[in-house]
Order: sequence, then structure tokens, then C-alpha cells
Amino acid sequence: MDRVPSATGSVVALSGGIGGAKLALGLSRVLAPGCLTVVANTGDDFEHLGLAISPDLDTLLYTLAGVADPDKGWGRRDETWTFMRALAALGGPTWFQLGDGDLATHVERTRRLAAGETLTAIMDDFRRRLGVGCALLPMSDDPVRTRVRTAEGWIDFQDYFVRQRCAPAVIDIEFRGVERARPQPSVLDALADPALRAVVICPSNPLISIEPILAVPGLRRALAACRAPVIAVSPLVGGKALKGPTAKMLRELGGAPDNAGIARRYQGVIDGLVIDTMDAADADR
Amino acid sequence: MDRVPSATGSVVALSGGIGGAKLALGLSRVLAPGCLTVVANTGDDFEHLGLAISPDLDTLLYTLAGVADPDKGWGRRDETWTFMRALAALGGPTWFQLGDGDLATHVERTRRLAAGETLTAIMDDFRRRLGVGCALLPMSDDPVRTRVRTAEGWIDFQDYFVRQRCAPAVIDIEFRGVERARPQPSVLDALADPALRAVVICPSNPLISIEPILAVPGLRRALAACRAPVIAVSPLVGGKALKGPTAKMLRELGGAPDNAGIARRYQGVIDGLVIDTMDAADADR
Repeated sequence: MDRVPSATGSVVALSGGIGGAKLALGLSRVLAPGCLTVVANTGDDFEHLGLAISPDLDTLLYTLAGVADPDKGWGRRDETWTFMRALAALGGPTWFQLGDGDLATHVERTRRLAAGETLTAIMDDFRRRLGVGCALLPMSDDPVRTRVRTAEGWIDFQDYFVRQRCAPAVIDIEFRGVERARPQPSVLDALADPALRAVVICPSNPLISIEPILAVPGLRRALAACRAPVIAVSPLVGGKALKGPTAKMLRELGGAPDNAGIARRYQGVIDGLVIDTMDAADADR
Repeated sequence: MDRVPSATGSVVALSGGIGGAKLALGLSRVLAPGCLTVVANTGDDFEHLGLAISPDLDTLLYTLAGVADPDKGWGRRDETWTFMRALAALGGPTWFQLGDGDLATHVERTRRLAAGETLTAIMDDFRRRLGVGCALLPMSDDPVRTRVRTAEGWIDFQDYFVRQRCAPAVIDIEFRGVERARPQPSVLDALADPALRAVVICPSNPLISIEPILAVPGLRRALAACRAPVIAVSPLVGGKALKGPTAKMLRELGGAPDNAGIARRYQGVIDGLVIDTMDAADADR
């Protein structure tokens, strides 16, 4: 029930949200239907207003389905915000913005999780209903929660990312629960598929989008064991992250905020790093 | 925490949803602020999509706050329906319509109930935030669930009322859990208040809107004990219910579908029944 069929001549893409979703969309356009498996980070998942929210899975779902907001990169196009206005009038928490259409994803996911379905099964049904041809899988059906240590102590990722807008310096990162998380079985199947052509690590933040996936027990080993090349696409262009706090976090955690720093984080996992022509000089380092 | 102050020279109104809310609104306009306590039926309450929904309380809240949809009578004015469209696209259940703004009430109520607050405290906060001056109380903070027996067996009230549009003949009605429900303490306070001027039974369906309130242990006795007159306003005009299945249900349950039938249902509770001039002949029966 929570396995989806893999396809021949396939590509596996590991992705976070906005930046990764753009490459996943590109891959879905050039690959035959059924030849792409997108594996999403679920370390950003959290519960808010009693709803199970999966930011990266949803950004991927909306982007691949062509219903993402083209300006914001997250959320849905043609969205309305009546719910948030009414919630504010009732004194409810408004720091995390939920569009009216987006809310349907969270309410229906929460309902189906409570009824005993796996996140995998639910997202697989959603993506089919929205006309997405490639497989979209969570890295695990078990809860993993990314937390960030700042001067104030450990805080939830969404607190850092949304409420505090990535302002505090990051001292440490943990993926709580990851040691007990089982990799989604179809992810292992896809990586073990003899017809696998490549694994692409999308241009997401290595620290908070890709490393939670790599931290799921068994996934790093499965990547090392697969015969297909594992190629990361750098999230940096001209030495800067197009979106998000990648460079800032790399610096704060003592790494070089450049492609050399990214390559080091992926050491032992990748066979190559695709960088922008603006950063050609990084290739020598 | 779950008591609200009562006022001198006060009126208590017992009400269901749409029809009752109109009279409650009228009363709130003619009485001094703080002199009206509206007691709502919660037998229609149910859980849907994991959300705690209180149809009559919400119709009263929206009507008294001036934000009710003027055409439908339920739900909110200036409502959007993006959530329902998105839910339908994801294959979610769509038989119960939830507007985007209305959804905020259910999500925030559910969140606060899960955090341990009473329905009374939550609704009291909501009505203050929306500028409602009178007290709005659930008949009880304990769950009571109205169920209807049809040829198919016992079904939930909203299944009968919304999904089946009141089409099946009603053989019996029960208020499940009512024998264990404790009356909301402020309702008893308001009825025992020496300054109470009147109890008004709003023009709601006696069978499914008022009788659940009367069935809460202690409330019928408190009404009998209060010195103020208890006056019901008939929901019939020209022998017909303006809205809803009142006449049909009265007939199916073996009563007369007229003001005499309504007066009989309220026997021992009311001191008088206000009827429309079109039904003046009923006064003699």
C-alpha cells in the first residue's frame, strides 16, 4: 500500500522546498512519465493549529502540479486568504500563513493520517489527483523534526525559519527522531533499481533540506551502494543562495559559504557537483 | 472561568440556529447590553474533518455579530469557498459546506478545545472579539449528539439534515449523551436570577433545537422554578415553517403540524405561545 511502482531508466531526485522543487519540475518535464521519483525532506514537517503540515512535500506537490504561487514559490496560485483574516479576528495564531486552498491539503492530510493512512499513501493519492505523473515520496513515514540551536536554546525549525525569519545565528542543528525513522521503502527500491540512471540532489539547502534525508538510517548507505552517479546541483549562484539562508547557515556552522563548503558537506555521497558558470573558479578548489 | 456575569433585568433566550438567531438578534437590539443571555442548542454539534463544529452556536455568533450571510442564514457574509474547491480536487468529503472564513471558527475552536478550554470559554471569547454584547452560552459543555431514526436505522443529525436534506421520514429522535450532560452553570445562574424578566423560546424547531436544551438534566426544572414568564415564539407562520423541516417532523412523529402541536410539546414549560396573526384561529385550540 505504501509502495509505488518504480520505472525503468529512472532518476531519483532528493529535494527540499522552493529551490529544489524548481529542478524537480524541470526533471519532470524532460523525463518520461513514471521515470522520476522525487524524495522530499520531511524534517520541516510540524503540527500547527492541530494540522499536520509538510512544507517541502506540499511545495513539491504544488510545483509539480502547476498550481504553485509563481511569485512566492510556496503556497498555491489563485489563493485567497479569508481564513487567515477570520482567524486573526478570533485571536488565533497568525505567524504561519495558511491560504484557503492550501488549508485543504493540511486538513485532508490530517484527517487521513488520523484514519491510519501513511503520509506516503496520502501524498501519492494527492499527486495523482492533481495530475502529477512522477512519484513524490516522503523520505520516511516516521516523524523527523529539524530543530535549530540558537543563543536562546533549541527551537523548532518553523519557529526559526518563519517566525524569526532566520535572524538568530545557528549554533547547531538536529533532526530529532531521525535515528528511529525508517526510510520510505519505495525510496530504497528506487535507489536499488538496476535501471536507475542518476540520483540528483536538488539545489536545496544542504543543512536543513538534504541532510535530514541523508540522516535517515540506511539512505546514505543506499546512495553509496547505487551504481548510478549521484550529482548535486549547487544552490549557490554567483556565490550566493538565490533563496533562503543557505550561505548564512554555512558560515555560522563554521563551513565555507561557497561551493567548496557544499561539496565538503556532501563528501562521500556525491560523484559530482553542478555549479553555475559564474562560480567557475570554485571548480578548481 | 466558564461562568459569565449575569445582568439585572435580564432575558434568557433559548435558541437553535437560523430562525432562532433572528429573534435573538432582535432581542439584542432592544435590550440593554449585558441584559440578554442566549442559550444555544449543541445537539447539532459534530466532528467533521477532525474539526469541532457547533452549527447553532456559530449561526448565533455570526448573526449577533452582524457577519452572517444574509441570504443563506448560516455561514458568513463575504465568504470565499477556495477551501472547498481545493478539498474536492483532493478527493476529500464535500457534503458539508465550510466557507474559508467559517473554517477559522472551527479550526481555532478545535485547537482551543484540545488545549483544554471549555466550549463556553472559547465561545465567550469569540463573541467578545466579534463585538457581541450579550452572553452566548452552550446549553452544556458536555457532548450531546442528536440522532434521528429513519427506516434505515439511527443516523447522525447532520447526515439526516445536510447530507439527506431531511428527506427520510423520522421515526424517532434521541439526544445521545444528554442524561450525563451537565447544564452550563451560567445558564442556571441566569434562570435563578431574581432580576430575570422573561425566558424566550426562540422560533426554532421544537423537536431538534429546543428539546435538546430542555433535555439537559436540571434545565426543565430550572425553567419551571423561575418566576419570570416563559414565552415560546412559534416557528410557524400561516401554518408552515419559514425554514426547515419543523412541520414535516411534527407530522412524522405523530403530532399536529400546527401551533397546537407545538404548544403540546412545550406543555409544562411555557406560560404562553406567540403565534402569527395569520394563525389567529389556532389561539382557540
